[in-house]
Amino acid sequence: MCKTTGFQDCLHYVFDYETPKTLVIPSIRVGCVFRFTQLLVVLYVVGYVCVVQKAYQDTDSVISTVTTKVKGFAFTNTSDMGPHLWDVAEYVIPPQGDHSFFVLTNMVVTPEQTQSRCPELPNPSTTCVDDCDCIEGHSDPRGNGIQTGLCENYSTTVKTCEVLSWCPHEVDTKLPERALMSAAENFTVLIKNSITYPKFNIHRRNILPHINSSYLKRCEFNRTSDPDCPIFRLKHIVSEAGEDFQDMAVKGGILGILIDWSCDLDWWAKKCYPKYSFRRLDNKHPVNNVAPGYNFRFVKYYKKSDGEETRMLIKAYGIRFNVIAFGTAGKFGIVPTIVNLGAALSFLSLVPVVTDWFMLTCMKKRDFYSKQKVSYLTEDTESMPMGSTYGTQ
Amino acid sequence: MCKTTGFQDCLHYVFDYETPKTLVIPSIRVGCVFRFTQLLVVLYVVGYVCVVQKAYQDTDSVISTVTTKVKGFAFTNTSDMGPHLWDVAEYVIPPQGDHSFFVLTNMVVTPEQTQSRCPELPNPSTTCVDDCDCIEGHSDPRGNGIQTGLCENYSTTVKTCEVLSWCPHEVDTKLPERALMSAAENFTVLIKNSITYPKFNIHRRNILPHINSSYLKRCEFNRTSDPDCPIFRLKHIVSEAGEDFQDMAVKGGILGILIDWSCDLDWWAKKCYPKYSFRRLDNKHPVNNVAPGYNFRFVKYYKKSDGEETRMLIKAYGIRFNVIAFGTAGKFGIVPTIVNLGAALSFLSLVPVVTDWFMLTCMKKRDFYSKQKVSYLTEDTESMPMGSTYGTQ
Amino acid sequence: MCKTTGFQDCLHYVFDYETPKTLVIPSIRVGCVFRFTQLLVVLYVVGYVCVVQKAYQDTDSVISTVTTKVKGFAFTNTSDMGPHLWDVAEYVIPPQGDHSFFVLTNMVVTPEQTQSRCPELPNPSTTCVDDCDCIEGHSDPRGNGIQTGLCENYSTTVKTCEVLSWCPHEVDTKLPERALMSAAENFTVLIKNSITYPKFNIHRRNILPHINSSYLKRCEFNRTSDPDCPIFRLKHIVSEAGEDFQDMAVKGGILGILIDWSCDLDWWAKKCYPKYSFRRLDNKHPVNNVAPGYNFRFVKYYKKSDGEETRMLIKAYGIRFNVIAFGTAGKFGIVPTIVNLGAALSFLSLVPVVTDWFMLTCMKKRDFYSKQKVSYLTEDTESMPMGSTYGTQ
Repeated sequence: MCKTTGFQDCLHYVFDYETPKTLVIPSIRVGCVFRFTQLLVVLYVVGYVCVVQKAYQDTDSVISTVTTKVKGFAFTNTSDMGPHLWDVAEYVIPPQGDHSFFVLTNMVVTPEQTQSRCPELPNPSTTCVDDCDCIEGHSDPRGNGIQTGLCENYSTTVKTCEVLSWCPHEVDTKLPERALMSAAENFTVLIKNSITYPKFNIHRRNILPHINSSYLKRCEFNRTSDPDCPIFRLKHIVSEAGEDFQDMAVKGGILGILIDWSCDLDWWAKKCYPKYSFRRLDNKHPVNNVAPGYNFRFVKYYKKSDGEETRMLIKAYGIRFNVIAFGTAGKFGIVPTIVNLGAALSFLSLVPVVTDWFMLTCMKKRDFYSKQKVSYLTEDTESMPMGSTYGTQ
Repeated sequence: MCKTTGFQDCLHYVFDYETPKTLVIPSIRVGCVFRFTQLLVVLYVVGYVCVVQKAYQDTDSVISTVTTKVKGFAFTNTSDMGPHLWDVAEYVIPPQGDHSFFVLTNMVVTPEQTQSRCPELPNPSTTCVDDCDCIEGHSDPRGNGIQTGLCENYSTTVKTCEVLSWCPHEVDTKLPERALMSAAENFTVLIKNSITYPKFNIHRRNILPHINSSYLKRCEFNRTSDPDCPIFRLKHIVSEAGEDFQDMAVKGGILGILIDWSCDLDWWAKKCYPKYSFRRLDNKHPVNNVAPGYNFRFVKYYKKSDGEETRMLIKAYGIRFNVIAFGTAGKFGIVPTIVNLGAALSFLSLVPVVTDWFMLTCMKKRDFYSKQKVSYLTEDTESMPMGSTYGTQ
Repeated sequence: MCKTTGFQDCLHYVFDYETPKTLVIPSIRVGCVFRFTQLLVVLYVVGYVCVVQKAYQDTDSVISTVTTKVKGFAFTNTSDMGPHLWDVAEYVIPPQGDHSFFVLTNMVVTPEQTQSRCPELPNPSTTCVDDCDCIEGHSDPRGNGIQTGLCENYSTTVKTCEVLSWCPHEVDTKLPERALMSAAENFTVLIKNSITYPKFNIHRRNILPHINSSYLKRCEFNRTSDPDCPIFRLKHIVSEAGEDFQDMAVKGGILGILIDWSCDLDWWAKKCYPKYSFRRLDNKHPVNNVAPGYNFRFVKYYKKSDGEETRMLIKAYGIRFNVIAFGTAGKFGIVPTIVNLGAALSFLSLVPVVTDWFMLTCMKKRDFYSKQKVSYLTEDTESMPMGSTYGTQ
């Protein structure tokens, strides 16, 4: 278009400013409606979006590293182990002190297992009368090994098929009613947690700057008196999770130590402290409870003087503690701010629509107002003299 | 300004309502264009943003805890171990049943290693003719130990430098062609996964409420018949990942059990179920394949009757299963809703622009319309009588 | 309303198009202000939001799997172990080669511990004169076991209470000044990292396609010469983290290998490479430093020929390497695009407001302009003849 017409017109086309003709309505009531709706929008933006939701912030999620160190020892005196003192190296599995650590509280020990032949534990599918009932080489998935085809005396009363496996078999029915290591409730754990918000290059630790070493040596976490102490008594953790330690220790379970690192990094609110909470993560006793609690089997291998390999099988029941650091950091960001302001602005653009509607429907003088505001295009106005046709461009 | 003029004017200034004068075009075609473009915007907002993208939702990402329990045993009969029955305590490493567990499927065993002196494994850099070829104290990074400076017979034909290290050395070239524990394909694993969406305080488990214990005792995951059963047969997992178990078992690999916990927490669509999928996570056989499969070495330590420490070195090949829970939960949030509505509104403000453009360029009566709509300011209108100057404020 | 009036009116109501009357101001200065403010908004949208912030992108966060394989061996010659060669199976704990692995660099070994009775280590609370100072069954949390009630000679000069525990006790004060396994600095680690962006179904590895096996066999990571090689020398990692390996090896520590997987998946910028960085994750020596460095205790169990269980307690100091893959992938998404464009548009709607304000306050001819633009509604205009009342609808 600029090509066809002269350069002068082109300048006009670009730089002439087209502004709507407006009409001033000197009515307090209309004015009030106008200002009031405006106020509502502004209030929403400032009050809710900015203050409550902090929608002006960029966010980043946490990267965390955890080390844990358990302290304490327990003394047990059982028939198959005799008097025994348990220290950290024995009851914490694995020993590395990672973000997830297991504390042994109860166990079924099967001391002298060797690869050999022995009769199965008696149950409907393993009991037999004579060798004919046992198929050589057959292995029952619910059993303990490969059947040799023989039928042996399990006890004076019962005969069961002989199997090749680690013998003698574990009898995990004789799990102690009361947790062997009930003393575990007084163990303490030191949790060191360093986090990073890579986007903002922020690094924090759960050992806060104002805490000194001497305090750390004697303190113990307590929501009211010592909320910043990173040393926790196991009993305290479990009870805060709404469980009873002794009860949980028998069959084991999984306990979450949640550290909420939600941070507001803006200078006017430099809040970035860890908030601890505790929750049992496995299901306790709902209807559909398969393999309740938490346990696993591990072994210690030995070699007899004659070179034969023996092992001690331990079915370990205990509490696995998972330290889970989560949270998001928020910091003023230009893009979210613009986006939210923009969204708010477009609501401001609604205000005149509302006010016009009010003015042209609810006011007594609505007909008068509308006559002044709206002019109705009629064909006969066609006959008016032509003026500049500039507007068509 | 309010100061200079009277209070009356000030009130006017604040409460007078300024509304644009408008012109009504009684043209069906223009009207259609107007309504149609309006419709498009509204459709986009309702149809796409809300229904498809759920842009009105706040989101939070998942925190998950996993325990796994493998069941099954395998029988092997090799030259250096003899008949041996493998149970969970032996072939699952580590035994804790964490979210990442390893199932041993193949191995190279070096039974009786002791700290002593023995000739290196023969290779160009270790073969020698006499002691002069071996430098005492020299250690070759690709070798197995510290050279003693002697040149010994490795076999009747080859002489190699003697080194101080764990002897005899492992010869991992004799890896079984067919996986030793091929029976592992029939092992089953029970996966218990509890998740949390902290922002919404939502807790879920992959054992769904409608599942009862008796079902859990016998069921096995199957996409069609048992999609909710949390017990998986290893062979099934691997085949769903598009691999062959026996093939994978030889050199090992890493397999991801992905649990998608994407949730829609709004009351009108309470969807929050786990979706299982399986993927091989390590690279199978691309061109740039260094150390294919997955293996690591671990040891069992023994002490001879004479107190000398010996160890059994096991180079373990197997499949590491990583249970990965991921996903985001969405729930109606006022801020995202407002932001998206706002954005849509500002598009509505485009509609008149489009329509005006259409009216003033594509319509026959465009000149007439423009004359009525647009008035061109000319200098001579300067001479008109002064009216109220209110508008200048 | 459509019901009360005829269908004709109804059509009008729906399809008549109401457009604001406008006034063209042929002033270059006003025009410039108008165009300039317009330009600013457009520049912000295009330049900042799109180019810098990529606000038009959908994002997803990474799911990562890591395997690590350490290579190298070290030779030590200590009083209590004699000449000893350490290989991977011994100094990497746990051996699985997970995303977090520990390299043993220093240790305190307590070889022949048995469950028995021995005098406590001397300290104010354990020293005694005679048996009366020792309470049978008493256990001091800072001690090593359960007191038997006897007072025994710890040395020729000191007497301490006898306790039942693993004896002899560990004396961890004799930690070597210089790390036992200083050779560890030359160990290398191969890191294999596979990542997934589930939302975009993108899979990547840190072993880039253009890398071939032969290169991988000999290469070593170097920021300048080999930035893509996934094999790292421990010394190099530690020094890039700003630490001295030998210094860190004495008391241990935690070192983060951060892999930044931030990806731009849009076709015009297919950028998706890992960026490595290294940071020490534990606190080095601030004021509040409890349990500095990183260490844990683990044991090897043996059985004497007489069947008595003995153990070797090792307090392991070393460096734990945590491989942390993080980052977000961005890909063009329609919703974020719309939202940001919308926000920008609503700013465009501000432009006329600004320009009008400028025109009606800063221009010489402001009174004239305002007279033309704004008409002031006065009551006497009431007396004009009634026109169509269409506008009221």
